[in-house]
Amino acid sequence: MGEIFVGIDLGGTFIKVGCFDSQLKLLAKTSAPTEAEKQAKVIIENMARASEQCVTKAGLSMDDVPAVGLASPGPAKYSEGIIEAATNFPTFRNVPIRQMFSDRLGGKTIVFENDANVACFGEFVAGAGKGVEDMVFFTLGTGIGGGIINKGKLLAGAGDNANELGHIIIYPDGRLCNCGQKGCAEAYASATNTAKRAAEAVEAGEKSSLKKVLDEKGKITCKDVYDHLKAGDKLAKKITDETAKALAVLCINTLHTTEPTRIVFAGGMIAAGDILLNRIKDYFNEQIWHLKKETVEICFATLGEDAGIIGAAALAKLNS
Amino acid sequence: MGEIFVGIDLGGTFIKVGCFDSQLKLLAKTSAPTEAEKQAKVIIENMARASEQCVTKAGLSMDDVPAVGLASPGPAKYSEGIIEAATNFPTFRNVPIRQMFSDRLGGKTIVFENDANVACFGEFVAGAGKGVEDMVFFTLGTGIGGGIINKGKLLAGAGDNANELGHIIIYPDGRLCNCGQKGCAEAYASATNTAKRAAEAVEAGEKSSLKKVLDEKGKITCKDVYDHLKAGDKLAKKITDETAKALAVLCINTLHTTEPTRIVFAGGMIAAGDILLNRIKDYFNEQIWHLKKETVEICFATLGEDAGIIGAAALAKLNS
Repeated sequence: MGEIFVGIDLGGTFIKVGCFDSQLKLLAKTSAPTEAEKQAKVIIENMARASEQCVTKAGLSMDDVPAVGLASPGPAKYSEGIIEAATNFPTFRNVPIRQMFSDRLGGKTIVFENDANVACFGEFVAGAGKGVEDMVFFTLGTGIGGGIINKGKLLAGAGDNANELGHIIIYPDGRLCNCGQKGCAEAYASATNTAKRAAEAVEAGEKSSLKKVLDEKGKITCKDVYDHLKAGDKLAKKITDETAKALAVLCINTLHTTEPTRIVFAGGMIAAGDILLNRIKDYFNEQIWHLKKETVEICFATLGEDAGIIGAAALAKLNS
Repeated sequence: MGEIFVGIDLGGTFIKVGCFDSQLKLLAKTSAPTEAEKQAKVIIENMARASEQCVTKAGLSMDDVPAVGLASPGPAKYSEGIIEAATNFPTFRNVPIRQMFSDRLGGKTIVFENDANVACFGEFVAGAGKGVEDMVFFTLGTGIGGGIINKGKLLAGAGDNANELGHIIIYPDGRLCNCGQKGCAEAYASATNTAKRAAEAVEAGEKSSLKKVLDEKGKITCKDVYDHLKAGDKLAKKITDETAKALAVLCINTLHTTEPTRIVFAGGMIAAGDILLNRIKDYFNEQIWHLKKETVEICFATLGEDAGIIGAAALAKLNS
């Protein structure tokens, strides 16, 4: 059978695990509750058991696994293998997760990386980034995460905080972002902030079929915005346009920085489909310079929720 | 004596040449008129003669030179060694300058690179970037050029157009840039546009001691703005603040992309000194996120006009 690689996507609710052959073909997949509120030891035990189950499900043994990739949300000191104080893990305080997990797995190599970088790497090796060497990746969820592939490798900065592309400022003195900056792309164009801007507009009295949603459910989701856009609501169109424009500016700004040949959007919001993608492309074409014709492709991710486990396994393979 | 490296900075008016030992110590320096309006052959001959003169001046021979670095303004296909249609060289149409220059020098290795990248590399190896591995570099002149050092290497994108950092959009729908985009950092904060904004404000009737300059000289330079700022003019302060704020946003946006430990500003405008640098730092500290304390150093270049010849020689050494 040869070598097997395990990829783990450590989320606040679930631990997702995939077991892959050396060609990164998925052999088996499992998931288990994270129990994020418990002590690090419990969570690490949950990850280890889920990994063992996954490998067993594939008819294999952990002895066949030279390295495990572990994707986790930040902030963390990835290069040191330490979660200092991640938002989703209330008990974690300077937990040397990489070492603890390696010890639990009998000294196996653990590759520990930021979840957005890992999903980026997953799309690069097996999804929407296949066939290119230079790619920029955005995940549109609660926030906007980013990843950059430069000459076939994940770009890393001086510390563990490169690729914070959602915090590129596009409207100085604009909307306050959770990070403390004003005017970040994330403050406009994440799924959460797209929905929030719609709710704010309705509350401010703008006419919209979304008012009924807000009145009945007490909130508006990003999906509501796109559903009402498809039904012809004008406010939903305006909100979508603002999101698409912010994302187009992000594309332009990263194009002028690392010059990718493909820009890939992922995350819950891409469920909106072409109605969103086409608006991003429209704004990109409207706003981009005329000095030369840009041929960068803008597209949506193709791996869905599996990008994390595939990317983690691919990084494990690369570092084993 | 060992190996000698020649660095050439091909400008629209002058060809600057430096001859360096293998430790990149300057041995001799010359310059010659470019004659940019003439045919490529003439310009290449000018570069070759200036190189030979420089090496002779150092008491050496071209036989001691394994490689020559050549920095030129864009746009060009640097990786292919071709100047397609550079703004400063009216006769150049798809000129294979790297090959022609190598032929003229008896087949010597020529390293051909964008002038902003070369100056960035020069500051990295011998100037304000010494001692760091990750750096971002901006030149503030007619436009804003950029360069990025990532893990000790010049970052290159998919083509020849990475690091166009002056064309990061910071005010969507803002001032029209020469590139065709609206709201580029360059459209606000280059030396030329800083001066232009001052002239526009005076023409629009804003009160300023700069009015006298405009009336008498018919124009305002960037130096005028900083001179009048030092003398207490309020408009000059406002214009400087806008420039500093745009540059601070550029610092934040590149920090969140490639995460440098040092950001270096170069070009004519840094002659303004601390009165500009401190304002950039103030705005950076005011605008940067609170998620973590950023320790990136923001400083001015130290090599002045020699950055190009040093960087070109350093790239020649690297590639020889």
